[in-house]
Amino acid sequence: MALAYELRCRECGKTYPNTPLSICDACFSPLEVHCDLEAARGSFTREKIAQGPDSMWRYKALLPVPEDYVPATPAGWTPLLAAPRLASRIGAKNLYIKNDAVCLPTLSFKDRVVSVALANAQIFGFDTVGCSSTGNLANAVAAQAARLGLKTYILVPSDLEPAKILNTQVYGAKLVRIDGNYDHVNRLCSQIAERYNWGFVNVNLRPYYAEGSKTVGYEIAEQLGWRLPDNIVCPMAGGSLITKIKKAFKELIALGLVEEKEVRFFGAQATGCSPISTAVKTGADHIEPQRPSTIARSLAIGNPADGIYAARAIRESGGWAEDVSDVEIVSAIQELAETEGIFTETAGGVTTAVTARLYAHGRIKADDLTVTCITGNGLKTTDALAGAYEVERAVRPRLSDFEAYIEEQTEDRAILEGASVR
Amino acid sequence: MALAYELRCRECGKTYPNTPLSICDACFSPLEVHCDLEAARGSFTREKIAQGPDSMWRYKALLPVPEDYVPATPAGWTPLLAAPRLASRIGAKNLYIKNDAVCLPTLSFKDRVVSVALANAQIFGFDTVGCSSTGNLANAVAAQAARLGLKTYILVPSDLEPAKILNTQVYGAKLVRIDGNYDHVNRLCSQIAERYNWGFVNVNLRPYYAEGSKTVGYEIAEQLGWRLPDNIVCPMAGGSLITKIKKAFKELIALGLVEEKEVRFFGAQATGCSPISTAVKTGADHIEPQRPSTIARSLAIGNPADGIYAARAIRESGGWAEDVSDVEIVSAIQELAETEGIFTETAGGVTTAVTARLYAHGRIKADDLTVTCITGNGLKTTDALAGAYEVERAVRPRLSDFEAYIEEQTEDRAILEGASVR
Repeated sequence: MALAYELRCRECGKTYPNTPLSICDACFSPLEVHCDLEAARGSFTREKIAQGPDSMWRYKALLPVPEDYVPATPAGWTPLLAAPRLASRIGAKNLYIKNDAVCLPTLSFKDRVVSVALANAQIFGFDTVGCSSTGNLANAVAAQAARLGLKTYILVPSDLEPAKILNTQVYGAKLVRIDGNYDHVNRLCSQIAERYNWGFVNVNLRPYYAEGSKTVGYEIAEQLGWRLPDNIVCPMAGGSLITKIKKAFKELIALGLVEEKEVRFFGAQATGCSPISTAVKTGADHIEPQRPSTIARSLAIGNPADGIYAARAIRESGGWAEDVSDVEIVSAIQELAETEGIFTETAGGVTTAVTARLYAHGRIKADDLTVTCITGNGLKTTDALAGAYEVERAVRPRLSDFEAYIEEQTEDRAILEGASVR
Repeated sequence: MALAYELRCRECGKTYPNTPLSICDACFSPLEVHCDLEAARGSFTREKIAQGPDSMWRYKALLPVPEDYVPATPAGWTPLLAAPRLASRIGAKNLYIKNDAVCLPTLSFKDRVVSVALANAQIFGFDTVGCSSTGNLANAVAAQAARLGLKTYILVPSDLEPAKILNTQVYGAKLVRIDGNYDHVNRLCSQIAERYNWGFVNVNLRPYYAEGSKTVGYEIAEQLGWRLPDNIVCPMAGGSLITKIKKAFKELIALGLVEEKEVRFFGAQATGCSPISTAVKTGADHIEPQRPSTIARSLAIGNPADGIYAARAIRESGGWAEDVSDVEIVSAIQELAETEGIFTETAGGVTTAVTARLYAHGRIKADDLTVTCITGNGLKTTDALAGAYEVERAVRPRLSDFEAYIEEQTEDRAILEGASVR
């Protein structure tokens, strides 16, 4: 049975049968998966989706896999949480958090894209997969490939601390240190993928990989009771996520699952690597590459592949982009944890700090229904908090000493006074 | 409307109305929550549960909360995964993993018990909560209390590395370093709870707290299609979890949700802290306290409160207990990650290594339907892997150099040879 999707060039529109290819051979522009909405119409209904699994695979009918594809690992279907306590701190009234800090299986939204990429790696018959990454992407590839019994190679620049990737090596992934920067590593990945039967999720599998991001948009709409928000705030690294959430919303409107609505898209970057937000703010029609210098490593892509498409999506929607300093990132990580009990990585600090600024500057109205996307878990970037908390004196294990200690602390004195003594 | 649960002494059976109390004033034995199964019969049905939320609160009717309780945070409802690749390595044929390494919101099964404890903290009107812990328990209390707007105190022995609790402090929890060991800290917690209107989840809220563990058992049964497994392998720290899973199964049988069946319970400890497994192996009728010395810190309770009940549950079921060395723990962490893509903390290494040994020694038959309980995430104990992977030489970013590097590695040579060169 013919598949309901194919590859199509984003610029010249040339179409290709499904194959591990990411660049158009006619105009060298990126290829994208085009799903046949009409073919999906019958199986992509609210009712059928509700009967699906508690994972992103409930949306299988609009993902580039065969109808009968059976996923090996649950992924996605993360909580959409009302955030009243954060909202009151930043002047919002109707704020929700899409919490991919707890995305299955490896605690970042990369699990979504990797799930779709590895499904296609199997379809294309690859026995070996890989990527160039040290972070969330490497985690997701190594873990999901292990469960599928695929061999995994992770290529990284040799100047990176090996300690950073213990939690990827544990899955049995083979780490190869390359004597060069990420540009060198990525070029080598392309050559290996070209020559051998290997699938690099973000190189020759990229068009399929990227479709996985649509599930963030599908989930937000379904979890809001099949309606779209007024605003989406989204972190930007390569710039793909924001464009795919927009694509997901368009598909839902076309299929009549949600009412038509102009959602405004807002992009978040770290000032230390802000090529996309700079383009949006200056109105530039191209992306000026930057040399990254920020603690938000998972967003530190100086020359973002989808940057121009992200900037375009933001402008066309009437949204905006902002970037924040490393200091703001750390305090936003703390503020999100203190108010909503969500511990996010540095990228989530970026998104939270940018969200606060968008409200403060009136770019987002207080009453708007806004969803901010948290994309990774704080346990992966605990370095960011080093030195954030001072070590206080030890207290002797006696009630009187404890009370005296509490008394010392003005902020806490009220508690004992307020406490009803039995 | 009267609540369908009360406190009852495990030994003398004396009953108490619901109140923050954990010890019987008549015989000084531990109190336990007793739920009125008859009262729950109408609302605890397969159909009503299936209509409930994708969280442990789908079992609310058998948890100690009012019928109208609305949870603030999704918790539990973790994947039950078939583990074919691990199974084939250890000689199992029908092995499942209950994966609380990805339990919401803080990635350990402690989220389940803390959810129920904090629900009751609110019911009892506590504005301040706490616990004595540096690990999963502190994480869960700090995160969930933050979202509820409760003030949190974490009391810890002063000799602990402050770095270990950054990921708890981030939630705004107040860390108090006590100049003593855990016994001192726990005694102080009891005194504070006694004197002030504070709720310590594992002290004065302990009976309610402990009920949360039942949800592991409910989920396993529902995820198996409303049937019970032949065997459960469960890590043991204080010993409570294994007794509560057994209690959950008994309740499901009594309510007719599953067929009656004798499930065998198997306990897992680290040899460096094995008071319960030692009691089971020696047939002792009491628990001999130990001074813990193991990397499995989350299981390192030398004098387990529920140890004797755990040992009893294991013996009565026809099960067994085992303990494993720190070296076995680390290699089991790697084996679970390499085969199933699950990265667990040291406690999960204990459970996995013990599971393998139980099959090897014939304590568990290959064909049995066995569920092994993974209770926490490996990102919390990455130290355990320090030095596990050697740093190899850097490779120049050229295809020929990469091929030469792969050639060097006998284990990998086959891959290129096998690869279909385009």
